[in-house]
Amino acid sequence: MLGYFGPAGTFTHQALRTVTDEEALAFASVREALDAVRSGVVDGAVVPIENSVEGGVSATLDELIAGSPLSIRREIVIPVEFGLYAREGTRIEDVRNVLTHGHAAAQCRNWLSVTLPEATVTEAGSTAGAAAEVASPDSRFDAAVCARVAGEMYGLTELAYQIEDNAGAVTRFVEVGPAGPVPPQTGADKTTIVAFMRQDHAGALLEILEQFAVRGVNLSRIESRPTKTALGSYFFSIDCEGHLHDRRVAETLQGLHRVCPQVYFLGSYPRANQRRPEIGIGFSDQEFDAAASWVNSLSRRR
Amino acid sequence: MLGYFGPAGTFTHQALRTVTDEEALAFASVREALDAVRSGVVDGAVVPIENSVEGGVSATLDELIAGSPLSIRREIVIPVEFGLYAREGTRIEDVRNVLTHGHAAAQCRNWLSVTLPEATVTEAGSTAGAAAEVASPDSRFDAAVCARVAGEMYGLTELAYQIEDNAGAVTRFVEVGPAGPVPPQTGADKTTIVAFMRQDHAGALLEILEQFAVRGVNLSRIESRPTKTALGSYFFSIDCEGHLHDRRVAETLQGLHRVCPQVYFLGSYPRANQRRPEIGIGFSDQEFDAAASWVNSLSRRR
Amino acid sequence: MLGYFGPAGTFTHQALRTVTDEEALAFASVREALDAVRSGVVDGAVVPIENSVEGGVSATLDELIAGSPLSIRREIVIPVEFGLYAREGTRIEDVRNVLTHGHAAAQCRNWLSVTLPEATVTEAGSTAGAAAEVASPDSRFDAAVCARVAGEMYGLTELAYQIEDNAGAVTRFVEVGPAGPVPPQTGADKTTIVAFMRQDHAGALLEILEQFAVRGVNLSRIESRPTKTALGSYFFSIDCEGHLHDRRVAETLQGLHRVCPQVYFLGSYPRANQRRPEIGIGFSDQEFDAAASWVNSLSRRR
Amino acid sequence: MLGYFGPAGTFTHQALRTVTDEEALAFASVREALDAVRSGVVDGAVVPIENSVEGGVSATLDELIAGSPLSIRREIVIPVEFGLYAREGTRIEDVRNVLTHGHAAAQCRNWLSVTLPEATVTEAGSTAGAAAEVASPDSRFDAAVCARVAGEMYGLTELAYQIEDNAGAVTRFVEVGPAGPVPPQTGADKTTIVAFMRQDHAGALLEILEQFAVRGVNLSRIESRPTKTALGSYFFSIDCEGHLHDRRVAETLQGLHRVCPQVYFLGSYPRANQRRPEIGIGFSDQEFDAAASWVNSLSRRR
Repeated sequence: MLGYFGPAGTFTHQALRTVTDEEALAFASVREALDAVRSGVVDGAVVPIENSVEGGVSATLDELIAGSPLSIRREIVIPVEFGLYAREGTRIEDVRNVLTHGHAAAQCRNWLSVTLPEATVTEAGSTAGAAAEVASPDSRFDAAVCARVAGEMYGLTELAYQIEDNAGAVTRFVEVGPAGPVPPQTGADKTTIVAFMRQDHAGALLEILEQFAVRGVNLSRIESRPTKTALGSYFFSIDCEGHLHDRRVAETLQGLHRVCPQVYFLGSYPRANQRRPEIGIGFSDQEFDAAASWVNSLSRRR
Repeated sequence: MLGYFGPAGTFTHQALRTVTDEEALAFASVREALDAVRSGVVDGAVVPIENSVEGGVSATLDELIAGSPLSIRREIVIPVEFGLYAREGTRIEDVRNVLTHGHAAAQCRNWLSVTLPEATVTEAGSTAGAAAEVASPDSRFDAAVCARVAGEMYGLTELAYQIEDNAGAVTRFVEVGPAGPVPPQTGADKTTIVAFMRQDHAGALLEILEQFAVRGVNLSRIESRPTKTALGSYFFSIDCEGHLHDRRVAETLQGLHRVCPQVYFLGSYPRANQRRPEIGIGFSDQEFDAAASWVNSLSRRR
Repeated sequence: MLGYFGPAGTFTHQALRTVTDEEALAFASVREALDAVRSGVVDGAVVPIENSVEGGVSATLDELIAGSPLSIRREIVIPVEFGLYAREGTRIEDVRNVLTHGHAAAQCRNWLSVTLPEATVTEAGSTAGAAAEVASPDSRFDAAVCARVAGEMYGLTELAYQIEDNAGAVTRFVEVGPAGPVPPQTGADKTTIVAFMRQDHAGALLEILEQFAVRGVNLSRIESRPTKTALGSYFFSIDCEGHLHDRRVAETLQGLHRVCPQVYFLGSYPRANQRRPEIGIGFSDQEFDAAASWVNSLSRRR
Repeated sequence: MLGYFGPAGTFTHQALRTVTDEEALAFASVREALDAVRSGVVDGAVVPIENSVEGGVSATLDELIAGSPLSIRREIVIPVEFGLYAREGTRIEDVRNVLTHGHAAAQCRNWLSVTLPEATVTEAGSTAGAAAEVASPDSRFDAAVCARVAGEMYGLTELAYQIEDNAGAVTRFVEVGPAGPVPPQTGADKTTIVAFMRQDHAGALLEILEQFAVRGVNLSRIESRPTKTALGSYFFSIDCEGHLHDRRVAETLQGLHRVCPQVYFLGSYPRANQRRPEIGIGFSDQEFDAAASWVNSLSRRR
């Protein structure tokens, strides 16, 4: 069974449902969801890792390396789209009291002020909670702003959809399991690692980036997180193109292991967008293998 | 008059008090404090920018570049130290009900469980609010966990101090004013900038870092923030050693201006720790000036 | 009056004649030609600097920096083409004794063995000297392999032309004057410099190359020469695209001046092939000027 | 039997004698000596590769890669020291006619003009040939300037030694054999390679140097040589610290093989000065092996 960062009816739940239709366990925090993977309570968990508006999800970046090793085995990208949901029979022109989470209210502010200029917006603990409350027949709220999955879950009617002001926002989720076999290469893969910088070394981040550059491995995300020990002490959470079994990625990982005091491999997995990387001259597996064969042949000369 | 991210009695307030004894205006959010600077309601504002445990303060990093230009003119580093404060006459062995903010409760968990094993801890909206509540003669709470400044403000007695589990945590604050003259060089200065990466360019972050490295300018902080347009689109908030009027910093800024689609200069100001940078061979003002003179002399040859 | 590395009738002489029809002074060595410029005996001198087969002309690379400053003000590229020249009336089928310089004999070996299989080839001190000898009515040699300019000079008949085995070989010459005003920019310019490496510094050459790379200045030639002090101690003779008055070149020169113990500017001058460089994003004069204006504006804020 | 670039009595001969006391074969050119190795006429040959005053020996750099593979198996560094040698019974004050090679005359010019102000210096084809001529009882020359080995060989008396003006000059020789087993690691080794640059690629040399830098391999010599195809087309002859069997060198060679159109491995061999390299953090064999083990363990996770 899988777990996820709940409650039901959130975008994380929606991400989970793209992976499985089976029952899943909601956890109250990312930490609890990942701890449940570590302790074997669940086989894996779906948690948010990056939001196109808010950035990296700090709790996930920190918790992924906060205990026994875990592996990301899949990524899921979900558009952040909100709708207005009400009990059956409610017409949009009747909506006076809207309930939703503060983030959702902020992201739909313009739409609400134009479409429902006289409505009062009240904040709830989560958008899914707002939907649950509105579903109650004696609720004093007429409608909830929430994800479609929450509207459906509580049997509400969709009065409007895609009401977010900033179209195109997405959130990226990952399915995380215990450290285990790496999923097979697909040719359109991504690898997630965490690298700590040497404290005593001014050009440490430059040195980390050169490990990738000299082997032709492009980065698709890099984020800093404090190590919690001192101001200015950071680790970097990095996504790069390619798979552990791509020779250029394997050699990059070796290079990072040598120049960083600590490196974590958090998994290689198919890219959600299925985009294949362009591999520059000198960086294909064939070229790596030919180079290794050549150097080996030098040692075997008689 | 200065403003600050309130309420009174927080660490931000404590940071403010290291700068001025005069009356200051508390704002409910970083955004409101900085907007008050922009609109001229206050002459400047003190806001948190970086915490050794939590990392960069996202709201500050984002809001500093979200409107008309602002300048950091000072940094203040404050140890994050908590105490236990009660009404006069309360003895520590009498404390049964403790009120504090959730973060503070978390950071003092061990101390509380050892020292006050039978006390109940209740969460308030802020540590300063907890102190205010405890100060009320008819409060049902016996003591507050808060900053010393809050304890003093509400006339409470300090029952214990430095009760945080993780000694050495600090928060860094900045005093921000409208864009104006840069404070004079002290020889131990820091410069804060924001650089956006070119979207179409794999080695863009490497290119940014090389602008610093080739001129011998060390970084003391680098943090990524999403540009809010797409997954993987980031800008970088960077502190480097040196002052706008140091030649190596000025040329680095020029280089960034050329290779980045957008660069913001957020100020040069004295380092709180007064540490002077080591300047490598080739990077002093004298060497920059000699180099410029030489090149100019080549053009003037008759 | 100009000087050149003689004697008359060589490729250097041919290069000189593309520059002037006036009388010029031949010198017996590159050193003597350049010393004559330094002492004012001649206004300038034409000397070879690079051969596509033999590489840099060491004597020129060394002598350019061996005394008071000189400037390259022009480059001339001459194809290395040989012909077979004889006294009037000699037919090619009558040629039995050929006189030429060893280098020329080597470069025409195949042609000679195929066309004149029974001829004897004798070595002379220079191809021009060979032509002079052949021109003498009582010479025992039937023909000379030499440059066309030598054949013409001594009134010889051209029996064959472009008889060199390796078509496409060229030699590059420079016209050198006393250090003076730099020729105006043409947009298709080249700059020649000499940079010494810091002895104590493993990555010194890398550091030199980064000065160019970070400002988008491409190299068209780099050659090492010993400093004559110790094994492994080198200086580098470098041609790069662009002109002293291009902002990216001027800043690169400043950077070199700072990181190298010694840098010589040997001139900016039009490229013989008139090819204009591609200027990458961030490296145009406009972008340099905009960057400098921006940084200046930061210092002038009120 | 070994061969060498002759004639007998030169510094090359002196270098050879540090390796073997057995009879050896002198060749008239570096090419002939190396071709004799290739064809099996000799087991190996000693040739000069680098002179602290004149730089790389072009003929050797070019010929090493001009046919079937060869390997450098030893380096020998010989001080360039000249003496004045005469027939027995000649006193220094009687010397009127000196015979020597032009290079030697140039390098001893000051000493000759001070010590023998009235002597006439005549040029011979080689310093060893000068010694042979002087050894003849009826020679019209009183003394030769040559290497000690030549003086001894022809039974001459040493009238003076170390008469060169520029003390400390050395020449480096290599013993070259057919490509075969690499000599064992000593911990103080040197590796010689030749790397060709990609023609279409502005930063090609920078890319080559980064292959070394990113693996902590220092260069002790880099020289450019023309590929003989076009102006500005170069290959690089490079000596680096370390041995083929050092993991950092092996990975560097692989990197060069991938980014260069052509790479030649010319051997790993003990450094003449027995200096051991400083190996930076992350670059030891242990660190390379640990990194490889770690990456392998990731693939084997169950």
